[in-house]
Amino acid sequence: MALADELAKKQRSISVAEFFEKNKHMLGFDSPTRGIITTIKEAIDNSLDACEEAEVLPDILVSVRKVGGDVYRVVVEDNGPGIVPDKMPAVFAKLLYGSRFHQVRQTRGQQGIGISAAVLYAQLTTGKPTLVISRTDAKSPAHKMTLVIKTETNEPEVLSHEEIDWVLPHGTRIELEFKSSMAAKKKMLEYLKYTSIVNPHARFRVEIDDESFTFDRVSHDVPPCPVAIKPHPYGIELGVLKRMTAASDLPLKEFLIESFSKVGEKTALEICAVAKLDSKVSANKLSLEQLNPLLEAMQTVKIPAPSALQCLSPITEELIVKGMEKEFQLDFIKARTRPSSVFGGNSFIVEAAIGYGGKLPVEGSAMLLRFANRVPLLYQQGACAITSAVSGVNWKAYGVSQQGLPMGPVLILVHVAATNVPFTSESKDAVASVPEVEKEVTLALQELGRDLKMFLSRRDKSKEQEDRARAICSVIPLIAQKVGEIVERPAPDTSLIEGRIMRRVVLKKGSSAGKILIRVDNYTTKDQEMALYDISGDSAGDATVPPDFVTEMDGEYTKIWKRLLHSGDNFEVTYTGAGGGIVDLQGIAENLKVVVDLDV
Amino acid sequence: MALADELAKKQRSISVAEFFEKNKHMLGFDSPTRGIITTIKEAIDNSLDACEEAEVLPDILVSVRKVGGDVYRVVVEDNGPGIVPDKMPAVFAKLLYGSRFHQVRQTRGQQGIGISAAVLYAQLTTGKPTLVISRTDAKSPAHKMTLVIKTETNEPEVLSHEEIDWVLPHGTRIELEFKSSMAAKKKMLEYLKYTSIVNPHARFRVEIDDESFTFDRVSHDVPPCPVAIKPHPYGIELGVLKRMTAASDLPLKEFLIESFSKVGEKTALEICAVAKLDSKVSANKLSLEQLNPLLEAMQTVKIPAPSALQCLSPITEELIVKGMEKEFQLDFIKARTRPSSVFGGNSFIVEAAIGYGGKLPVEGSAMLLRFANRVPLLYQQGACAITSAVSGVNWKAYGVSQQGLPMGPVLILVHVAATNVPFTSESKDAVASVPEVEKEVTLALQELGRDLKMFLSRRDKSKEQEDRARAICSVIPLIAQKVGEIVERPAPDTSLIEGRIMRRVVLKKGSSAGKILIRVDNYTTKDQEMALYDISGDSAGDATVPPDFVTEMDGEYTKIWKRLLHSGDNFEVTYTGAGGGIVDLQGIAENLKVVVDLDV
Repeated sequence: MALADELAKKQRSISVAEFFEKNKHMLGFDSPTRGIITTIKEAIDNSLDACEEAEVLPDILVSVRKVGGDVYRVVVEDNGPGIVPDKMPAVFAKLLYGSRFHQVRQTRGQQGIGISAAVLYAQLTTGKPTLVISRTDAKSPAHKMTLVIKTETNEPEVLSHEEIDWVLPHGTRIELEFKSSMAAKKKMLEYLKYTSIVNPHARFRVEIDDESFTFDRVSHDVPPCPVAIKPHPYGIELGVLKRMTAASDLPLKEFLIESFSKVGEKTALEICAVAKLDSKVSANKLSLEQLNPLLEAMQTVKIPAPSALQCLSPITEELIVKGMEKEFQLDFIKARTRPSSVFGGNSFIVEAAIGYGGKLPVEGSAMLLRFANRVPLLYQQGACAITSAVSGVNWKAYGVSQQGLPMGPVLILVHVAATNVPFTSESKDAVASVPEVEKEVTLALQELGRDLKMFLSRRDKSKEQEDRARAICSVIPLIAQKVGEIVERPAPDTSLIEGRIMRRVVLKKGSSAGKILIRVDNYTTKDQEMALYDISGDSAGDATVPPDFVTEMDGEYTKIWKRLLHSGDNFEVTYTGAGGGIVDLQGIAENLKVVVDLDV
Repeated sequence: MALADELAKKQRSISVAEFFEKNKHMLGFDSPTRGIITTIKEAIDNSLDACEEAEVLPDILVSVRKVGGDVYRVVVEDNGPGIVPDKMPAVFAKLLYGSRFHQVRQTRGQQGIGISAAVLYAQLTTGKPTLVISRTDAKSPAHKMTLVIKTETNEPEVLSHEEIDWVLPHGTRIELEFKSSMAAKKKMLEYLKYTSIVNPHARFRVEIDDESFTFDRVSHDVPPCPVAIKPHPYGIELGVLKRMTAASDLPLKEFLIESFSKVGEKTALEICAVAKLDSKVSANKLSLEQLNPLLEAMQTVKIPAPSALQCLSPITEELIVKGMEKEFQLDFIKARTRPSSVFGGNSFIVEAAIGYGGKLPVEGSAMLLRFANRVPLLYQQGACAITSAVSGVNWKAYGVSQQGLPMGPVLILVHVAATNVPFTSESKDAVASVPEVEKEVTLALQELGRDLKMFLSRRDKSKEQEDRARAICSVIPLIAQKVGEIVERPAPDTSLIEGRIMRRVVLKKGSSAGKILIRVDNYTTKDQEMALYDISGDSAGDATVPPDFVTEMDGEYTKIWKRLLHSGDNFEVTYTGAGGGIVDLQGIAENLKVVVDLDV
């Protein structure tokens, strides 16, 4: 068959740049519209990671400007530690190159693809090289380069390189031009808003054509930079163990202690014993037949879970609640940071929050905010394990209707922080289905669901009570009127009764024989801080309780009594006067007070 | 800042094998369970592609066998053209290597990743190399190799290589061992069933532990192998055009004719004119400033769509209907192959089918079968553009209830055949959202939806008519009986009336004064092919219409009259005889006939 020879001629290597040029949608460059967002996201991921490493409060400038036709210039500039000139070409113009891929710690970037994918997309759509400026300290000059990726080889090509003066003492600036459209402006601002919520220490200045936006920092503490740890023995795979042992000339016991986290002398010896291997044998002498029991022993022997504290950086319950409250003015909000957990040797922490009511839309599905390593996930919600975990919770049990996702004015936030987030693709839009992660999300939501249920049932109960009270109150004045007609007297004032039934603070002012009486009853179930204002021509010099404050203007006296009125208590004051004017309670919510001025 | 220098030390290249070892879920190796399916799928994709190229009817052996613990051996063997020994290492043990990535035609494999990903997964989970045997023709020996991928460099390593005798004159066999579980057996058989539906020319013999299954071919025609075509000018991107011109020393006009499909002399000159470029300028002399208008002209000038006929291989409406009918015994089934269309310079054809009723479950969502380039897509339904297109159709307008997907006994099949299927990730589970593709899916389903609506409304109407008829028919015998009582006669036979109302074929046999009368009335709306059987002691020698066939056994005569009975017509025969025996109509469905034998 000559065919095999013929086919053989067509066989060839595919460079990773060629591969992703053809499959650019896998990198988040599905459409020109999305190109801008993906580029900004990748650049900001790098900036925030670098600032965290340098323990600098990030100050990031994002600029998107139309430069003609459908071509846009995107600029992202940070005050991070900068990149040494030698490394600039590969960092920006070589796919699969970076510092974070081989480290076991929480970082936003983890693949070494992101920003060079943007460079690839720019040169593909406009043919233009990418301009990069970087400076590592005030004593060195800044370096300015124009770069392209040689697609056939995935190697960087430096088109120009010069040293320049630059305003920033350290930092990095990238400028790309590509075909796009502004259709995604709303989504871009959404991305920045959510990024700012989960990175409260960062400041973003944004310029979109001629508009400016600032997302300011609300915290001045740089979150501690997650520390890289050694891999944990659980979840190591045979192929990796084989490679690790082959590269080590240490005796087995020392190899185990040196190479893995949480393995001390005792654990190492126990692993050797269970595997029936000599702890002094050189690691690189182990055969495949010996590696198999070694791996098994590493999974069997009880080893403490990896310490997530150092290598992970959760947002914390407090900051999540703060961020959500600021954005959505919710009636109910609760966050939960779960204890750390492990999948395939990777530490991870799930954080979740549920919000209810406030400005959330009453109709339609719940709003779901997904985050991974402090980066908002804006696309492919349907493909994400977070979504399926949310849909998998029985929300009806918590008093919320459900069609897949919960329905109604519900906001759900889920953050997965991991040393290696299992994304479904290089575009990092969705978390792959990992049972351990899904379980943690479910547990967090179930805990929060129970709190939500309690809130909703309390709310329903108080609503029910209020409905009943309202029904009664609507009848009382009619009864009073009827009674008045029968006994041929004016109908008695029933406000006090209504206030009592409705659990309100009732203020009543009346006059009788030249005496003015003011009385406040706290029928609510809570103690109330109140300030009673009485503004009239009376100076109330003989008041039974002297006011805490009196002032006169044009013959009008403002008299203020401030009190903490316990639930069930009342306050009364009498003075001689002509009455009239206005009376009010400050410090009591409008829907909690009833003011009855019988003296008008 | 010394930090930049420190960070620089950590910067390094990541080999594509390292990348996918860490992100193996992107290749469809999310879980051990899925590993087997992905491996079989990738191997079969290659086998079917190779057999198509060689114009051979594929005969594929799949074997999955537990070899101890949680380790399974997977074997896939084909009768394809084989692979020359030089190329075997890279084909199987180097990611991003293959013959189909750079071709513009419909193939199952298109990335050069699939099978080497399985090799990577095997060595990762068991440390075992992969065994490959291949032979290109009967005159050459077979070559047997054991291979691994050097992860750090993504280069193949040949551990052993020998020439061997082999039963097959040509073909390829691959044997891998990896950790897995048999949990996915059902899904595996499902995958093979669907693969066999859309590849009716292939035969699969399957051995799972000690069970055997065969999915036989139903067609003996090798589908024509799609022919590679040149790229179409529409959808070419600037970066690619820049690379193409740089590599060509032809004058611009000749470059355009040589490099693109559907560009002849006239079109080429028109492109040059619109771009205001000299048609004789050497392509590699063009500057970026000249390439921009050239690209624009290539998009503006009217050029015929690429001919999909050669480069695509749709399944065809007939074979889709055949395959679906065989599997699901449907009440309604209709398929549609749309005309070819283009996205970003790639030709594609959408085929769809809708089935209704039959053995489909009445409850729950519709069953959705997704295919791309004749490969079933089994995972990530929620992330697939096909799914969102199906959910986007307003099914209620076609009489089908809907909750996202249509609900009820509905089966939807969608096949996307393209020179480059835009998958969301390397695991090729889901089609990315491309508006052109989604639109074609929607149009196909809308066309089919209209047919389904007609079927459903006819069915509803005929059901309604039948209900009404049934109600009337249930009263007729009672009326007849009453009338009989009043006139003091036996109740008249009403079967004929009922048959007429119910639109049946009515067979009536009666006797009167030694004469036997048989009458058949076709009250249905269709012409009916019938065979009237009359089996009794009568020879019917004097029949008014002689039988088409008579036979005698033990004094019993079987007499058969075969007729095409038009709708509304009747058939009558009379003969002398004693009557008795049995009478029946063959060729008429049970629910369409009424047999009234008054002669029993």
